[in-house]
Amino acid sequence: MEILKNRIRQDGTVLENGVLKVDNFLTHQVDPVLMEAVGKEFAELFKAEQITKVVTIEASGIAPAIFTGLFLNVPVIYARKAKSLTMKEELLTAEVYSFTKQVTSNVSISQKFLNEEDNVLIIDDFLANGQAALGLVELCRQAGAKVNGIGIVIEKSFQDGRELLISKGLRVESLARIASLENNQVAFVEEN
Amino acid sequence: MEILKNRIRQDGTVLENGVLKVDNFLTHQVDPVLMEAVGKEFAELFKAEQITKVVTIEASGIAPAIFTGLFLNVPVIYARKAKSLTMKEELLTAEVYSFTKQVTSNVSISQKFLNEEDNVLIIDDFLANGQAALGLVELCRQAGAKVNGIGIVIEKSFQDGRELLISKGLRVESLARIASLENNQVAFVEEN
Repeated sequence: MEILKNRIRQDGTVLENGVLKVDNFLTHQVDPVLMEAVGKEFAELFKAEQITKVVTIEASGIAPAIFTGLFLNVPVIYARKAKSLTMKEELLTAEVYSFTKQVTSNVSISQKFLNEEDNVLIIDDFLANGQAALGLVELCRQAGAKVNGIGIVIEKSFQDGRELLISKGLRVESLARIASLENNQVAFVEEN
Repeated sequence: MEILKNRIRQDGTVLENGVLKVDNFLTHQVDPVLMEAVGKEFAELFKAEQITKVVTIEASGIAPAIFTGLFLNVPVIYARKAKSLTMKEELLTAEVYSFTKQVTSNVSISQKFLNEEDNVLIIDDFLANGQAALGLVELCRQAGAKVNGIGIVIEKSFQDGRELLISKGLRVESLARIASLENNQVAFVEEN
């Protein structure tokens, strides 16, 4: 997605140890016009999949997911990292290990929002090691829902998340694929 | 806003001790079509205010805020409750006391995203005691930015948040104002 790649080139910052900071349009300050375009693109990519629910994870997945849900005309569920006071019913819960923070945390979705008739599209802002996406896949599995695709805004293709998800038979579509962040430069995967 | 009130009547659940649960269209599962209408309404209400930034707080403020920013054509910033690994620059930080959880937590925004030329519209999903909104107002004050309005999706008018904010000279617009949750019934404030 060319406008996204241009925005990363223009506004992304590469920090030490392979961190790409995009906090001025995606992860802290958000550009709603760009997010609308991102959501439209995901909806187009997965339009044949008869998606019934979009699932993401708080907080930075919400903006791209909400526009995807809008264009697919389906509800969006965001998995919670902390248990809310009003989540009193049965929960689907999975563990997510963060290589960056080196901690394991839980993500949860209320069981009532997913069932075996759902075709789920998982949306997230970043794909690196794939652990967050795998956690969301696990929540869907617990509900008996089918995961029909995973849409990623920015993929770090030099990490193994994509391979891990594809090896499980999942369809992964990433709007910007980063081949390398070496020498503090963003290099994208060459695509036709 | 009639479609919002109807949705609350239809899908809201009143829990014990004055908690209104709207997790199937706002705080966990989100209806993107309703959120788009909510954002359009906020943009219309505040269109004369020359808003330059929409500010909200993760996670459930993001969906209404992102559509408000879309229709006002300005960036949306969501304050973070936990410090992100990549937030290395100067932060604006304020304390927020939660009466429900009886804990004080911090909310933060990177200083670079707000300055004295900004006219800010604060958006949040709920207004009860007003502490979260006051925390966001404090972040804007630290940046020298002007707060031109506060847009609330659901206001608990039987709590004192609205009075508190208005007493500080702030304009508050709430799309659904709840007069009472007594006897597990939602009663709205009568408005002309």
